[in-house]
Amino acid sequence: MLMLALESSAKAASAALFEDEKLLAVSVSNAGLTHSRTLLPMAEDLLRNLDKSVRDVGLVAVAHGPGSFTGLRIGMAEAKGLCWALQIPVIGVSTLEAMAFGGPDMDSSMLCCAMDARRGQVYNALFTVRDGRPVRLTDDRAISLAELEPELNSYGKPWILLGDGAELCYNTLDKDKLSLHLAPEPLRLQNARGVGLAAMGKAPQPVDALLPVYLRLSQAERERQAKLS
Amino acid sequence: MLMLALESSAKAASAALFEDEKLLAVSVSNAGLTHSRTLLPMAEDLLRNLDKSVRDVGLVAVAHGPGSFTGLRIGMAEAKGLCWALQIPVIGVSTLEAMAFGGPDMDSSMLCCAMDARRGQVYNALFTVRDGRPVRLTDDRAISLAELEPELNSYGKPWILLGDGAELCYNTLDKDKLSLHLAPEPLRLQNARGVGLAAMGKAPQPVDALLPVYLRLSQAERERQAKLS
Repeated sequence: MLMLALESSAKAASAALFEDEKLLAVSVSNAGLTHSRTLLPMAEDLLRNLDKSVRDVGLVAVAHGPGSFTGLRIGMAEAKGLCWALQIPVIGVSTLEAMAFGGPDMDSSMLCCAMDARRGQVYNALFTVRDGRPVRLTDDRAISLAELEPELNSYGKPWILLGDGAELCYNTLDKDKLSLHLAPEPLRLQNARGVGLAAMGKAPQPVDALLPVYLRLSQAERERQAKLS
Repeated sequence: MLMLALESSAKAASAALFEDEKLLAVSVSNAGLTHSRTLLPMAEDLLRNLDKSVRDVGLVAVAHGPGSFTGLRIGMAEAKGLCWALQIPVIGVSTLEAMAFGGPDMDSSMLCCAMDARRGQVYNALFTVRDGRPVRLTDDRAISLAELEPELNSYGKPWILLGDGAELCYNTLDKDKLSLHLAPEPLRLQNARGVGLAAMGKAPQPVDALLPVYLRLSQAERERQAKLS
């Protein structure tokens, strides 16, 4: 079965095609153009270059968040549109889990996946690698860097930093206390290969059950709540 | 300046676009279709999705070998055609050096870049990483695995295996004597991102000075020599 994976949770957009468990093709664009302009054309190009059409797609995997509110809405809306039209199921995966699946696979590696959530926080989850696969140490959460530091320290191990918040962590957390390593760039930034790998083995969902996971209220909602209270 | 990087030395084909030192977009296809069918359309798609045309390309970087004779000829011919038509320079880079530039960038890492050259040999070069950049320990060469093993052993360090010959090395070399690690897949296989990174800082060449580097005679040439001698 042909699976299309989409990633649009941050500045880069990415699409990938898998045939069963095999990655056939992947494309990443990080030129600052809006995902509404780039994401579906990337998917179309991948399909055309493999002599396939959108009708050959049997499953869509998409990063459901956390991440950029606008970016996630674009990826989720495109996934829903495709799946509704083709009458195929969808699999939503955590953006942070997708990063871990796209990251280093050496056993016992400790993976700190992070996106800049502004206001001193990161969207974060921690993983370790067993038998080449990431295993969760925490749920996805929005956490301040001040809280994250002692938690990382408590494991007493070196951490590999992943995600578009990796550099923020590297530059902010105390490197006298913690052993921190930025993952190499192609492993560091979230991309659709990780989304596809994370989706494997998960149960497909009906399209209307797929919901974005923002972890926090949007700025507009926060401001409205502040006004009303 | 916009640089187009092409990689077609093995089964996967890959194209990437850089603006000065920044990677704008990269596409990898590993579906077993011929590179003559996939490589230029991939480049065209990347350009179109960035609202650019082939006329915006100011420089082409291409892996000049070693590698698959047919694959290299396709990549080199396409690079030459593009550069001649656009009257722009080209930079040919070693396939093995491009692997190293696309690989893990943690300082002191020891990188063993390898492609399966058949007949018990690999195309190989060894690198270490200093200040985030690969530094050569050997020239590119065709070498038997029996010869490579004691050479790797003489460094007394763990090796990270890169390239489409990485699994061959991992499965053949003696893991009781050597500490070997397969690089994670997106870093392991040669791709156009590594070609672009390796080209940076190298002097552009006139198109007619670009020649493939096969390191060995082709099967047809070997058979002809055997017949004539």
